[in-house]
Amino acid sequence: MNGKQTTRLNHGVHSATLNKLRVAVIGGAEEVGINMTMIEYGKDIILIDCGLMFPDEDMPGVDYILPDVSYLKGKERNIRGIIITHAHLDHIGAIPHIAPILHNPPIYSARLTLGIISKRQDDFRDKPRLDLREVDVDGQLKLGEFTVEFIRINHSVPDSLAVVVRTPEGIIMHTGDFKIDLDPINDQVTDFAKITRIGKEGVLALMADSTNASKPGQQLSEKYIGKTISDIMEKAEGRIIVGTFASNLNRVQQLIWAAQELERYVVLEGLSMKTNVEIAKELGYLTVNSKTIISPEEAVKLPPHKVIIIGTGAQGEDRASLMRMVSGEHRYFKIEEGDTIIFSSSVIPGNERSVQTLKDMLIREGANVVHYQMMDVHAGGHAQQEDLKLFLRMVNPKYYIPVEGHLDFLWTNGQVARKLGWLKERVFITANGRVMEFAGGEGMMTREQLPAEYVFVDGLGVGDVSEIVLRDRQMLAEDGMLTVIVTINGHNGKVVGNPDIISRGFIYMKGNKSLVEETRRKAMEIVSPKVINEKPNPVYLKNKLRDELGEFLFKKLQRRPMVLPVVVEV
Amino acid sequence: MNGKQTTRLNHGVHSATLNKLRVAVIGGAEEVGINMTMIEYGKDIILIDCGLMFPDEDMPGVDYILPDVSYLKGKERNIRGIIITHAHLDHIGAIPHIAPILHNPPIYSARLTLGIISKRQDDFRDKPRLDLREVDVDGQLKLGEFTVEFIRINHSVPDSLAVVVRTPEGIIMHTGDFKIDLDPINDQVTDFAKITRIGKEGVLALMADSTNASKPGQQLSEKYIGKTISDIMEKAEGRIIVGTFASNLNRVQQLIWAAQELERYVVLEGLSMKTNVEIAKELGYLTVNSKTIISPEEAVKLPPHKVIIIGTGAQGEDRASLMRMVSGEHRYFKIEEGDTIIFSSSVIPGNERSVQTLKDMLIREGANVVHYQMMDVHAGGHAQQEDLKLFLRMVNPKYYIPVEGHLDFLWTNGQVARKLGWLKERVFITANGRVMEFAGGEGMMTREQLPAEYVFVDGLGVGDVSEIVLRDRQMLAEDGMLTVIVTINGHNGKVVGNPDIISRGFIYMKGNKSLVEETRRKAMEIVSPKVINEKPNPVYLKNKLRDELGEFLFKKLQRRPMVLPVVVEV
Repeated sequence: MNGKQTTRLNHGVHSATLNKLRVAVIGGAEEVGINMTMIEYGKDIILIDCGLMFPDEDMPGVDYILPDVSYLKGKERNIRGIIITHAHLDHIGAIPHIAPILHNPPIYSARLTLGIISKRQDDFRDKPRLDLREVDVDGQLKLGEFTVEFIRINHSVPDSLAVVVRTPEGIIMHTGDFKIDLDPINDQVTDFAKITRIGKEGVLALMADSTNASKPGQQLSEKYIGKTISDIMEKAEGRIIVGTFASNLNRVQQLIWAAQELERYVVLEGLSMKTNVEIAKELGYLTVNSKTIISPEEAVKLPPHKVIIIGTGAQGEDRASLMRMVSGEHRYFKIEEGDTIIFSSSVIPGNERSVQTLKDMLIREGANVVHYQMMDVHAGGHAQQEDLKLFLRMVNPKYYIPVEGHLDFLWTNGQVARKLGWLKERVFITANGRVMEFAGGEGMMTREQLPAEYVFVDGLGVGDVSEIVLRDRQMLAEDGMLTVIVTINGHNGKVVGNPDIISRGFIYMKGNKSLVEETRRKAMEIVSPKVINEKPNPVYLKNKLRDELGEFLFKKLQRRPMVLPVVVEV
Repeated sequence: MNGKQTTRLNHGVHSATLNKLRVAVIGGAEEVGINMTMIEYGKDIILIDCGLMFPDEDMPGVDYILPDVSYLKGKERNIRGIIITHAHLDHIGAIPHIAPILHNPPIYSARLTLGIISKRQDDFRDKPRLDLREVDVDGQLKLGEFTVEFIRINHSVPDSLAVVVRTPEGIIMHTGDFKIDLDPINDQVTDFAKITRIGKEGVLALMADSTNASKPGQQLSEKYIGKTISDIMEKAEGRIIVGTFASNLNRVQQLIWAAQELERYVVLEGLSMKTNVEIAKELGYLTVNSKTIISPEEAVKLPPHKVIIIGTGAQGEDRASLMRMVSGEHRYFKIEEGDTIIFSSSVIPGNERSVQTLKDMLIREGANVVHYQMMDVHAGGHAQQEDLKLFLRMVNPKYYIPVEGHLDFLWTNGQVARKLGWLKERVFITANGRVMEFAGGEGMMTREQLPAEYVFVDGLGVGDVSEIVLRDRQMLAEDGMLTVIVTINGHNGKVVGNPDIISRGFIYMKGNKSLVEETRRKAMEIVSPKVINEKPNPVYLKNKLRDELGEFLFKKLQRRPMVLPVVVEV
């Protein structure tokens, strides 16, 4: 915008209202995942995306993480809808948990996205039915004071959308996840005309994907990858096994095309892979010859050079098909000498070691492993710096708000705009729950902070694993635990019998009997009353045991197991 | 070798002996770290390197890992020496623990390497003095039946050596860690003449660094990095803080030179950084003007643009200086707006998330972060594919043995030789402890497997943390633990009082009182005797509690805390 078009933004300003436009990234401003953006004006709220995130090593035992929607509690009636940009878990994964909490508002998206949301809901049979509403990508949606439009965008899954929200204060545009792909797979190309048209109208703020903002240059078209993959496949003499994300439907499409060209049959492995392909096929987003996809039972009867297995597990996941094939736990397939394994997805940060282990296991079985370091079998789904610049130039927003990524990514994305001339005060580096306000064509980062704690899902529990529990898990992992059970006479404080010691994750007890004995004696000594017939104080004794045994063990071994004292009075 | 020079190898064969040459990689054939190679002939053993490795997330609480030297127990008298290639922890780190176990054999290396080993030994005051012997790089060392020579090589620390072992069966050459750097820092260039001369003699087997074997092309000279770093530094207006490895002395040298050019003063941060620089300076391996290095106290009095802090912690380590500066725990320095932070080391696999967290924290404080994705501030210390090819062409070994890396790296390194014409049976993809035998000019991978378990160091304990303990730690981390203490009357089996429940890392007990109550009732029910006056069987009751409470909790929450039952008889 750079000042020149500021006046045009005033078209949206209602002189009579005291309301402000409030925008907050509920999740996705400090991480890759739990994407959710809130746009609020008066009594109207819309949400964009509702994603989950997988935990990192600091969150042991956690299955996944949800965004914190506490601010919306009590405001459920204001929520006009959740708009979903595309069918990836970091944008749809929290729906089964969060939609019911928010009183099941309508969920708007394109056809394939809704198909995948709907299918996934089958895993949550105890939850109420979702209110899914397909949008007309060329139409408009009236949601309270907001008018919502959509822009076709390209990503690694078809039917990805950017969202345009016309508010009384001006237009907010949200890119969703996007890349510029001038020759996309099974998808229409980005609607540049619409982007520039809306840009000409004047856009108050553009919220843009930061995932790959640290990479200079342009993202590669998915089609280039097709060629590379075909080349690798053509050279493979035996069976081919490709590991990729089930969510990367465009990659899966290319793999299927390559298989057909080489007259190989395709086996799909992994539940998410099978269901995603099924839905995409059904809704016409994936083309495949009727005889190409075969069952594992059929595949094992064919010679290896006629088979391609497309499966999940390229991140080294324990239970995924690739790991089961290499460890011999798969029902039909076992990795054999002569197999070619293609890792066709980038490694998610944090998974490097498990991927390394998987590769080593594959090589040990005699497989030929091709990974993206050796040959570029990966084109990402996210805008790189030149792509972000193109978007910025087309939209020319007054304010630029990087979203979707760690602070570092957001900041780097912000630098892209800064280098094109956007002033520092026009680039908002936000944080989860931080409220940005817009009024009279001007925006500001307020000091208002909405709740933005991670909500942990562990088994059937949602939100019952707190930071305290996680800290305990980390401590237990570090040096294990030791329970000491002391029985004392409630009248005279005398120790009855010998203290019991139970320990796990600290030392191997059977191999360290003398240390166990010493610990037992030490415990005796700690609780033995100095004065005969002293009435015992169990709380005092427990604290004493915890502190003094802890210190004793640390001196012995320089380890700090969690000491859990139990005092039984009889 | 490719057949042509085979006959020449016979010069080493003693017709009268029945001994075979045995070579085994004790550590470093399945990981990056714990490097140790054994060469054995009759009653003579030499070892090359003695390194440690830091644990990955599957080994919670472990401080570091040592190679398994069990095979050498009882053979201590045969050990003629440990030859150290260079002063990095993955090559020297296990010395304080292993040298005493092996009856303190002489340790041979170049001057700087010995200086650093000696300094590090100060941290192990309870251990016996090491027998350190400086080698003449141009001389020969007679160690039993072996004659050892050295070749100057380049790496990221000065005084790095390749090792040539003349055995009765032929020459074994070990590259150590190396790169081809035609314009090295503070170091002589690789002794190509010696390599080719020994190559011409005929080398039986070449053991070569696989760390960067998956990278095509040539490793960049460290000098190129100097230019990039100077450019970044020149643009920085405020204080500059550089995070790098203390072990990368060549990088540290360049940083110091750049600081001097820009007329900035240097503060060294981190104990290893300070001691390494001190030793290198003292021994003449690092040049620095007498006034360049200043203390933190002096630095805080200077304007920011006069200061460069060179510190450790670029891997996001909790206690390192960079983390303390950003978290406000550093005694002298606090990250401020305007600081430029340069990450001048690649991210070690597994550290991606902690590095990300550190970067986000730095940006939150207003610092300007430059990392290697944004600008190439990193040149590695290890040979890439073209460098390996150059070495192979110069040495032309009969057998090629990739070492130092995961199986995947070894295999990829093997492929480099295969592509140059080495036959599959001449490229040994080995494993830790796997014995390779050479006799009559021919080599083979035997089926003999020496012990090769990881030896874990945790606090003061060496080897007392077993796989069982680690598995328990992982289980505890996953879903925590729950101890239930039931007191029963030893005569009639009746439960006395209420069972006690203690849990950590499972649920937050105070916030889940009803579940705690239910669990208590369930425990009561499980141990209550069906028949009055039944004499209790504590072992049976404990197993019953463990199984049934475990199942109860899993049904409730789909979590599996470790259930530790205690039955107290009174």
